[in-house]
Amino acid sequence: MSNDARTPSERVSTWLAGFGAALERADIAAAVAMFDDDSYWRDLVTFTWNITTLEGKPAIQAMLDTTLGEVRPNSWALTGEATGSGELSEGWFSFETAVARGKGQIRLKGDRCWTLLTTMTELKGFEEPRGATRPRGVEHGAFQDRKNWQQRKDQAEAELGYITQPYCVIIGGGQGGIAMGARLKRLGVPTIIVEKNERPGDSWRKRYKSLCLHDPVWYDHLPYLPFPDHWPVFAPKDKIGDWLEMYTKVMELNYWGSSEAKSAQYDEATGEWNVVVERGGETVVLRPKQLVLATGMSGIANVPQFPGAERFQGTQHHSSQHPGGEAFHGKRCVVIGSNNSAHDICADLWEHGADVTMVQRTSTHIARSDSLMDLALGGLYSEQAVANGITTDTADMIFASIPYKIMHEFQIPIYKQMAERDAEFYERLAAAGFMLDWGEDGSGLFMKYLRRGSGYYIDVGASELIIEGKVKLKSGVGVAAITAHGVRLSDGSELPADLIVYATGYGSMNGWAARLISQEVADKVGKCWGLGSNTTKDPGPWEGEQRNMWKPTHQEALWFHGGNLHQSRHYSQFLSLQLKARMEGIPTPVYGMGEVCHLG
Amino acid sequence: MSNDARTPSERVSTWLAGFGAALERADIAAAVAMFDDDSYWRDLVTFTWNITTLEGKPAIQAMLDTTLGEVRPNSWALTGEATGSGELSEGWFSFETAVARGKGQIRLKGDRCWTLLTTMTELKGFEEPRGATRPRGVEHGAFQDRKNWQQRKDQAEAELGYITQPYCVIIGGGQGGIAMGARLKRLGVPTIIVEKNERPGDSWRKRYKSLCLHDPVWYDHLPYLPFPDHWPVFAPKDKIGDWLEMYTKVMELNYWGSSEAKSAQYDEATGEWNVVVERGGETVVLRPKQLVLATGMSGIANVPQFPGAERFQGTQHHSSQHPGGEAFHGKRCVVIGSNNSAHDICADLWEHGADVTMVQRTSTHIARSDSLMDLALGGLYSEQAVANGITTDTADMIFASIPYKIMHEFQIPIYKQMAERDAEFYERLAAAGFMLDWGEDGSGLFMKYLRRGSGYYIDVGASELIIEGKVKLKSGVGVAAITAHGVRLSDGSELPADLIVYATGYGSMNGWAARLISQEVADKVGKCWGLGSNTTKDPGPWEGEQRNMWKPTHQEALWFHGGNLHQSRHYSQFLSLQLKARMEGIPTPVYGMGEVCHLG
Repeated sequence: MSNDARTPSERVSTWLAGFGAALERADIAAAVAMFDDDSYWRDLVTFTWNITTLEGKPAIQAMLDTTLGEVRPNSWALTGEATGSGELSEGWFSFETAVARGKGQIRLKGDRCWTLLTTMTELKGFEEPRGATRPRGVEHGAFQDRKNWQQRKDQAEAELGYITQPYCVIIGGGQGGIAMGARLKRLGVPTIIVEKNERPGDSWRKRYKSLCLHDPVWYDHLPYLPFPDHWPVFAPKDKIGDWLEMYTKVMELNYWGSSEAKSAQYDEATGEWNVVVERGGETVVLRPKQLVLATGMSGIANVPQFPGAERFQGTQHHSSQHPGGEAFHGKRCVVIGSNNSAHDICADLWEHGADVTMVQRTSTHIARSDSLMDLALGGLYSEQAVANGITTDTADMIFASIPYKIMHEFQIPIYKQMAERDAEFYERLAAAGFMLDWGEDGSGLFMKYLRRGSGYYIDVGASELIIEGKVKLKSGVGVAAITAHGVRLSDGSELPADLIVYATGYGSMNGWAARLISQEVADKVGKCWGLGSNTTKDPGPWEGEQRNMWKPTHQEALWFHGGNLHQSRHYSQFLSLQLKARMEGIPTPVYGMGEVCHLG
Repeated sequence: MSNDARTPSERVSTWLAGFGAALERADIAAAVAMFDDDSYWRDLVTFTWNITTLEGKPAIQAMLDTTLGEVRPNSWALTGEATGSGELSEGWFSFETAVARGKGQIRLKGDRCWTLLTTMTELKGFEEPRGATRPRGVEHGAFQDRKNWQQRKDQAEAELGYITQPYCVIIGGGQGGIAMGARLKRLGVPTIIVEKNERPGDSWRKRYKSLCLHDPVWYDHLPYLPFPDHWPVFAPKDKIGDWLEMYTKVMELNYWGSSEAKSAQYDEATGEWNVVVERGGETVVLRPKQLVLATGMSGIANVPQFPGAERFQGTQHHSSQHPGGEAFHGKRCVVIGSNNSAHDICADLWEHGADVTMVQRTSTHIARSDSLMDLALGGLYSEQAVANGITTDTADMIFASIPYKIMHEFQIPIYKQMAERDAEFYERLAAAGFMLDWGEDGSGLFMKYLRRGSGYYIDVGASELIIEGKVKLKSGVGVAAITAHGVRLSDGSELPADLIVYATGYGSMNGWAARLISQEVADKVGKCWGLGSNTTKDPGPWEGEQRNMWKPTHQEALWFHGGNLHQSRHYSQFLSLQLKARMEGIPTPVYGMGEVCHLG
């Protein structure tokens, strides 16, 4: 069937030409026939004004039936050389729609498409001014009573939110809100970022003393202004905080620090939100057309109600309220939980001379930071990748091109490798009593992250403390009750405690919507995050994309942004384009809004 | 003589191989024979531990006779493809010495070298940690009583200058001092930047309201962290100020704002400077091994003593003290001078509603900003250049490869083009009485800049005011006297004035040395800047390089850094390597220290 003498570039070019022609003449059947039975088309905005994966030909057909007439795709062209071996070919391509330009990635098996990724890069007529179209800056010439850049900036900042209204308000000024703000700034979308901490970066500064990024630098760049090439592999929290503060300044973001959003109500009649913000003791009501919650992919803290907690005479708090270990030298500390926060807090307490016990109720997936960096990320995000010509955007696009449905298949071998590479480490950890897992299907950390946002620890040192017994461990037990002086476990033993930390996770991000907007709206949009994989904390049915993230929700004009630094960077592009299109009155018919199946 | 069938790459490779072999066997005569009679070898540090241009074969021979044995150059290799047409070939190459790695550029006429540029890129064993050798950041693991990054940084900052001494002190925290600081930071040279203004960038913020960069963005990048691609072509002063402030912070420079260097004395016995600094009301004595004056290429203000100045009843000050036009609405202002500062100040005064007269005593070269950008810079520093693959460093290297001796020949055609392109503009300006020039040999703005640092104006709007008579002009006159109420000109006319601004230039940078160190040391090092071109304000004899800039001076351990953003960026590389070599005890035998021919 496939002509093996053709080069990968020829195969991909031929496919694109045929596909483009079929779409041009609205021959959907012919276009769909060009896909393999086992096929996936992931579209970021261009066809569906959504973030969707169509799995298999019927789904692809249904999407084209609905969208093709409006989208008017055209100009499909291979960019660069395609690669491949045997029956597999893959390549990059550019294309256009009626209103946008896009790029994508395609994998062919023989002559048929296995995976197709289409992404929007820019809206025609609303391109970000950059390079040759960058602003001139100050106009040369002489003008009386001119206001210079600083004066115009100060005036605009003073007026925005008071005399003029932003088009968009972002609640949450961490890296997610900041990345979104930068994208929207360049697109000319007036935006205010509302952050309860005082300075950009404080959400990092206020963390435990020893915290550093767990992801390596090549994974972490913000949009437009990458870290310089002497930046450390794992940046310390304060260094990241300083970068975020600087970035916010030079990107000229409208960042309201020390400002807390108290409530938000959507007015359907005016198509506006009323967002009540407390800012420096004043109450300000913002009236944006769009509201983005960028409060982090962790929702409201999940504090289980253990019997007797109210009688505990020591200090107890959720991990999100933990101030760091300085006050606990010599104190007996019990940390309930065994995932990332629990490990970080145990290590931090031990470093401050506390007596620490971790209570592990269920198994945890552990991946050592260096192994994760080398084995899981290295192909795409590393010095070697950079040397191989894989830019950050290319890496993001490659990652985006792998359908979630089959992503675990790509991950399982990596974790097999990791298990071998670090076999001795895992043996010692298991020997200390730690309950290890590799994800329900052996697919490891990223799948756990994508499915449930938790259930793992990227080991940066705490595991060794557990191995050596410096952090004590009670595993395979639950909490029966909290006593006046400690924790009674399900095996009957008691742990005396001066401090109990509930490292017991977070609810879904829509918990913020419940708190800020209403339970009704929170229920209307439903659970955020997760793929519907029918694994722990990610119940089915299968969604195929992250619930509610970076795309339209069932609440008009409400959006969720978040994720790790990679996702904040990449998906801010697509969310910002969706908002810009709406601001400019470009029709955005959304295809593929799923039903809400879970409330949280 | 030359085999025309060979490609440029073959010619250059052959030349490099022969040259390298001759040097390897210390056959200096053979090496020198490979140069054309009309030849130039510009060395930035690698052979001469200096910034030198050897002009012609005898000079090249003399340099090799002295330096070859110690330098031990080797591994000369073409990088990339050479280019050429007819008898000309040019290409890039890498090479090494005993202690360093370098790169360079060569132009051949036939088989002989016309121009050779050798530059040092790094010292072996002391490479900047970057890319694959970047620091890891926080060490994973758990350590009791650890100090984290912020704590170590705070401690180091608190101690430097008090408990520990910096290796280098830089006086002046504008873009020059900041660029130097960044280079030295990455090289691990403990450095303090002493700046009298409070915040980095203040030297820009405090300028006239309408000021923006006169050079376009591609010319202006700082080392290591280029402006993002939406940065305006001509950045407003406050925006540059904010960038400098951010850069100083994220590059982790030890920047002492609100600190003024009062005096500096060199102790030959200890090989240290004693630098007395007033910092926040305290006196601190710094004891660095090296002292860099980065106070800007303008030296001490030059205020001519006009007869009667003491009786003037209005406000009078040098342009460097001019606060901006806000206070002068409706006032009669006389600006003595017709170069850059004079034009900026006249335009700023007019914008604030003042009655302004410029007194032009001698001719001025005018180049319109857009024409300069397109015609003079465009080939190297522009969006088109970027699209053509010319990186900032490549552009800097190309510029550096043109010998000063013949640079005017490259410039003259550009300014002929400019005269044609803007013919109407120049006619109108001349018709208004303005005395125009194109440099003494028609070589225009850059040569004037390199020779005397003044005598021109990059027109960003003031010329139109003069053309239209909005700024009045008295040209071809001198100042006879200052009266109680104004200025009496040499033609007998009087200009009543509430404000007199002496836009009368600056002395040589060694004036700062006189003020800070001693007149003796200022005389020992002599005049800074200029090429010895025997043109106005740049008396002979011919130096061939900028006097005293970025290279050893006749005062041990005293250095001058400065120039425009391009020079600050590029030459900070070579100055920082010279300092690092000294810090590491690498022998740095300096070749080609000229005699001091002018004191200022």
